[in-house]
Formats: sequence, structure tokens, C-alpha cells
Amino acid sequence: MKSCIGIDLGGTKISGILVSPELEVIAEIKTSTEIGGQNGAIDCVKSVIDQLCRENAVTPNHILGIGIGVAGHVDSEEGRVVYCPNIPIENFDLGPLLQKEYGFEVFIENDANAAAVGEKHFGLAGQNRNFVCVTLGTGIGAGIFIDGKIYRGSTGGAGELGHMILDFSTDAPVCGCGNRGCFEALASGIAIARSAKKVFSREEITAFDVAKMAQEGNEAALRILAAAGNIIGIGFANIVNLFNPEKIIVTGSLVENEDLILKPASETMVQRAFSTNAKAVEVIKSNLGNRAGVLGAAALVIQERAHLPCV
Amino acid sequence: MKSCIGIDLGGTKISGILVSPELEVIAEIKTSTEIGGQNGAIDCVKSVIDQLCRENAVTPNHILGIGIGVAGHVDSEEGRVVYCPNIPIENFDLGPLLQKEYGFEVFIENDANAAAVGEKHFGLAGQNRNFVCVTLGTGIGAGIFIDGKIYRGSTGGAGELGHMILDFSTDAPVCGCGNRGCFEALASGIAIARSAKKVFSREEITAFDVAKMAQEGNEAALRILAAAGNIIGIGFANIVNLFNPEKIIVTGSLVENEDLILKPASETMVQRAFSTNAKAVEVIKSNLGNRAGVLGAAALVIQERAHLPCV
Repeated sequence: MKSCIGIDLGGTKISGILVSPELEVIAEIKTSTEIGGQNGAIDCVKSVIDQLCRENAVTPNHILGIGIGVAGHVDSEEGRVVYCPNIPIENFDLGPLLQKEYGFEVFIENDANAAAVGEKHFGLAGQNRNFVCVTLGTGIGAGIFIDGKIYRGSTGGAGELGHMILDFSTDAPVCGCGNRGCFEALASGIAIARSAKKVFSREEITAFDVAKMAQEGNEAALRILAAAGNIIGIGFANIVNLFNPEKIIVTGSLVENEDLILKPASETMVQRAFSTNAKAVEVIKSNLGNRAGVLGAAALVIQERAHLPCV
Repeated sequence: MKSCIGIDLGGTKISGILVSPELEVIAEIKTSTEIGGQNGAIDCVKSVIDQLCRENAVTPNHILGIGIGVAGHVDSEEGRVVYCPNIPIENFDLGPLLQKEYGFEVFIENDANAAAVGEKHFGLAGQNRNFVCVTLGTGIGAGIFIDGKIYRGSTGGAGELGHMILDFSTDAPVCGCGNRGCFEALASGIAIARSAKKVFSREEITAFDVAKMAQEGNEAALRILAAAGNIIGIGFANIVNLFNPEKIIVTGSLVENEDLILKPASETMVQRAFSTNAKAVEVIKSNLGNRAGVLGAAALVIQERAHLPCV
């Protein structure tokens, strides 16, 4: 029986998964990427495919297809990686290349969208037709399901939630994208670390350190996380007022301790969104940990091959 | 041959239109509403239907159906008006009532959604499948088309663009909704008038007055509009980064003079949105004036009756 491969290609690590057509997980691997340029990145993807096949005694002609979630802007129709801030692949037809080399079908998807597909097939989205999967980690991203399907927008650029501007003042914090006042510049792991560096006058502090200090009762750390949680709640309120989703499913390192970030964020959302919309939405932590992306990448094969609406 | 009726029910005026099944306009009327409570509002709607029928010598059994755009939160499936800030109808099954009384089918829609349907069938949306129709007037609203259909969200509350929070500071301007820092509180006609009252120390000044002064070269008025235009551009950038639409079609009193608001807003959007998304979108002024809503209400009958995707 043929199986599917899912790959989650990030800036610092790559995960691979082998699943049955019924989406049962057969094997999983994860390595850090040491990517030297575009060829290095492509070799990295190939070596994960090869390892999954070799270790599980399957040949490429036993593979139904492969889905790849890429941390960047992709053109899913063409199987093209357009641009990634942290992966050295640009305007490259990764899908057609792998398809030619291995013979199986390849589906390229943005990683946040892949995570939303993962929530649909393996996680908490269940029968929901309209939901948003938000990743709160070093950066902030979103995958949006509308009417039971991934919503990619007109050119694959929808769901850039991290770059929704929430502070238009001229001295708003600068974002990695070059803009100012983006959600990501105000409330991501990077933003929390930046606040902490100022407050504690320490260069090496991370969002993880701040969370640890907060858990130990450090008041300054608690204040930093409360401020971030409030802004995340504002971001959620905007999602709720614009998309009126059934669920916001939250994943990423910032929600590992729910009480510190997700609880205050949900409270702010309820205060700031329209009450009918706030009542209609459930804000929940994903139960897939950091596997939503790789699981969703594998599920893409079934979903896109079947051209089925994934109800 | 049977015709369709469209009605646009606002807080201060009501418009009605009679169209052929091919969406040719047969007759149009517009009156101010003097609404004394819920019964008064319903009588208002009925008198527009009756007048359109009487003056054009059609009987209700010659009417295919009627679409009503309502300035508020509606449940389109049930034909229910849920809540309107400026119309005294609440939790009322307006659709079933009119259906019973006249015998024809009734479709109830939010007015911003109806305007987007109007842009689709009569205006500039043409073949676009993903577009946002933004109304910039006394308030700010939006109707969103996704994959060729109105996007209503899970409970009919999607597209509350005017209540996207763009300023989360605790002293941000208060919005009509009771919240602070909403798009509408920062850059609508009401917000412009509020700024002008401060700047010119005049109680009676309106956004219309400010636009007139700006056209005559008044520097303070120009500054007020430039500030509003910048914030509108931030709002557009957020639409572009979240929805990646093909078009933003803008209507409402604030865009009557394009150069004062829409041009600076478009420039800010291009600077602040992701460049691939900004390149994919066209920001244009509607060519339907304030008729998008009533035209769309009539087109709803054809669109919803046929259960056709309106491609």
C-alpha cells in the first residue's frame, strides 16, 4: 500500500514524516538544517526523503506523494518557493524538480497553512469550516481555513498575521520585515526578548528565560508577559472581528505555558471583540505541539490529490 | 416577466430599486426614514415595496424575490435582523414576515455585504474572486468576497473592519462601539469631525466641511485629512496582508474627492504592506456612488435563488 511523506522545512530545522493513506503515522525524523545556499537546502529536503524511504524499506514508487510546508512565501499552484526570510531558496520550482527526480506528486505549501491543514486532519479543528491557526513563537504566523479550505488569497500571500500593523506611531518598534508596529514586532518571542533586554539590562535573555522567571514569580517578567498577552489579545480581537471564526487554535513556543500568555490574551479578546463574534469563537491551545506543520504537510497529499473539500 | 426588488435600509434613509432578472434597472426610489420603533421600521420597508409595485404597475406575484441590505448584524440563513446600532429592529425575523405577507422570497443581508454583491454584479469587481469592498463614510465597514462568494463568517459577523483595533494605547479615541482605538474611531467621518472640532475650536464642523476647507487650501484641514488618509492606508495594508485580495473597492462619502484621502491611503498601503501582496492589489474608487448597496440587494435575489457561485 502506498504511503505519503510530509516535510516541514524551517530556517533552522527540518522534520519529515511517513504516513499511511489513512493518515496513520509510520515514522518521523527531525534534524537541524545546515544549509549552505539553495543547493544545500534542496539536498537537505532530499536527504530527509531518502532517509524516510531507506529506514522504512519503501521505494519512491511506493510513495503516493509528498507535501512540503515551507517557512516563506510559496506559489502552491506552480510548486514554487517564492521567497523565504530564513531559507536560501528563492523563485525556485521545488515541486517540479522533486516530482521529476522521484516520480511522485509534490505539493508545496506555506508552513502556517500546512499547520492549519494539520489541525484539520489531526488536531482540534474537527468539523470546523472557518478557523484560524495562529503560531506564536519567535515570529507570528497564521493559516486560515474558510469554508473548509485553506485560504491562500489571490497570490498565496494571505494570512500574514504577524505583519498586521497594531501601532502606527512613527516610533513603533521595527519589525524583521522592515516595517514598524507589526504584531510580530510587538508581541512575538523576539519582541518579548527585546523588552527583557531593556528591563533586565541583559544582552543574552530570551523569551524562554522570561517565561521561566515569570513562573518563579519575578514581577518584572510577569509584567512583560502580561503586556505581550494583552497585545496578542488585541490581535485575536482583530481576527475575530474580521474573520468571525469558530476557533482560533494556537501553537508555538509562547503558549507552552497557557496561563502566562493564552489566558490573558483570551480575556483581552473577549473584552475587545464584538460580543456576538467573541461568543462564537473558542481560543484553544493546539494538542499537536510543534508537529502540526509536518502532519499537515503529509495530509496535504491526501487532501489535494483527492480534490476533496476537507470536511 | 418577473422582476426583483432591492432595498437598502439605513439609519436615516431607505432606498428601493426594481430590476429585471437580467439586472436592468427599471425604477429607483429613495426616502428618508422616520422610524418610530420596530413597527415603524418594518412599515417603512413595506411602503417602499408597495410604492415600487404601484408606480410600476407590478403586483407582488410578479416579483421573483426581494433582497434587503440592513445596516447591522443579520442572520442571513434565518432572514433575521439581529442587532442594528441605528435602526430599532432587534432579533426579528424580517425575512419570514415579509415572505408570509407578500408571498415572494426574501433575502436579508448586511449592508456592507450587499454593497460587495453590488460591486460584483454592477461595479468594478468583474471577474475578481477575492476582493474587499470598503465603505468610508460616517463609519467604516467592509464586505468581503472570497472564492467568488460573500464571506459571512461562522455567525454572520465577518468583515467588521471598522472595529479592527489599530491603536491599543489606553488613551486611544473611544469608538461608537464602546471600545477604544478602532479603525472607525481613528479615521472615519466621525473621527475627522472630532479632530476638526479640536483644531478649529468649532462645535458644528463636519468631515464634509473639512474636505471643503482642504480643497480651498486650508493647511490645518489638509493635515487632518492627511492623518486620516495615512491611517486608512494602514487599515488597507492590514487587509492586504491578511486577505491578499485582487481589489479593494472603496465607496462612501470620504472618497468623493479621491486625491484627499484615497491617494495618500494607497501610497501608505504600498509602503506598509508586503510588496508581493501590494503589487497584487488594486485600490479603486467605486463607480456606483452610494447605489452599491441597493443594487447588490436586488442582485442577491438572482444570486441566492440560483444558488450559483457568482463568477
